[in-house]
Amino acid sequence: MKNNLIEKIVYEISKNTSLTQKTTQRLLNNLIKDQDIFNNFIKNLDTLKTQVSMCCICNYYKIDKKCIICSDESRDQNIICVVSNQLNVDNIEKNNQYKGLYHVLDSEINLNKNVSPNDIDFESLFKRLSKSKELILALNATFEGELTANYIYHETKKLNINVTRIAKGIPMGGSLDYMDESTLIDAFKNRKKYEV
Amino acid sequence: MKNNLIEKIVYEISKNTSLTQKTTQRLLNNLIKDQDIFNNFIKNLDTLKTQVSMCCICNYYKIDKKCIICSDESRDQNIICVVSNQLNVDNIEKNNQYKGLYHVLDSEINLNKNVSPNDIDFESLFKRLSKSKELILALNATFEGELTANYIYHETKKLNINVTRIAKGIPMGGSLDYMDESTLIDAFKNRKKYEV
Repeated sequence: MKNNLIEKIVYEISKNTSLTQKTTQRLLNNLIKDQDIFNNFIKNLDTLKTQVSMCCICNYYKIDKKCIICSDESRDQNIICVVSNQLNVDNIEKNNQYKGLYHVLDSEINLNKNVSPNDIDFESLFKRLSKSKELILALNATFEGELTANYIYHETKKLNINVTRIAKGIPMGGSLDYMDESTLIDAFKNRKKYEV
Repeated sequence: MKNNLIEKIVYEISKNTSLTQKTTQRLLNNLIKDQDIFNNFIKNLDTLKTQVSMCCICNYYKIDKKCIICSDESRDQNIICVVSNQLNVDNIEKNNQYKGLYHVLDSEINLNKNVSPNDIDFESLFKRLSKSKELILALNATFEGELTANYIYHETKKLNINVTRIAKGIPMGGSLDYMDESTLIDAFKNRKKYEV
């Protein structure tokens, strides 16, 4: 390909964001083809850029000056749920069940990528815990997520706080044929009375 | 989720582009988190918007005033290769083998999506063919691609032009176990002398 300008832009965007080069190419292709869509896309980004930032308490998105979670006084101020990133909060909020606060780490301990505990701002979490009664660990059930959960658990031992973690088990629609050993062990351990 | 602004932007971007809502969320999440990346992303889009458009001859990208394919006089002006979209040209050009011209339809006949032949600008293709000797159909081997190829073939019958299509067969790395009947039939029909 000799379109070096497009190639360069695809490479840069893909390097800096979560998009693959293929997805970036498709996105840019759609934008170039339609000026209206392109203008609208840029307008939306501008709105996002000027109005959205991160909450200085929980690190979730805030629009203008307020984070909708931290500023909601009806929520239980005694429970903090730790998640890896902002999208996790969106996912949990969709269910409309959890009514406590959040803390977004925006990272996980990852030895392969040289992310050690020192590279993550755990201090702002630990500071908040002095006023809390329960800390829910809702981190990914991956090696990195477990490592991070483990670190937080050990660091908060000295605090007088109830540390829980969300249940592991068979996900909805999951087939036992394809479930790994550790999930099955957890699913059996955490079995509940069958109720209809 | 009560972040209606973000939700609205994710919905709009996803509706207008090829990105899924999940991918859009991830992209925007990456952008919001890092002002430098966000600024760079917008800068790249601006460059793209001001410098890239579609070639009025072949409908491939052109940067500033020139399409690199149509303006390259060393290319064989007697062969036109028809493809569905601009990314197909990039893919073929990577191989550095084909040295003719292109024509990007930027669409395919698709009865499910109500895209009939009248919705596609075939005329600009047919006009170009009067000066050509060969028309290569390099459309997708999907129902829509075949339908489009078939339409072009029938419409160009009256023109004195050699119409070919790229070969069907087993793709590199493909396993015969998973190959469908029609591919196998084509692969056998088009078998070539084994050479090492």
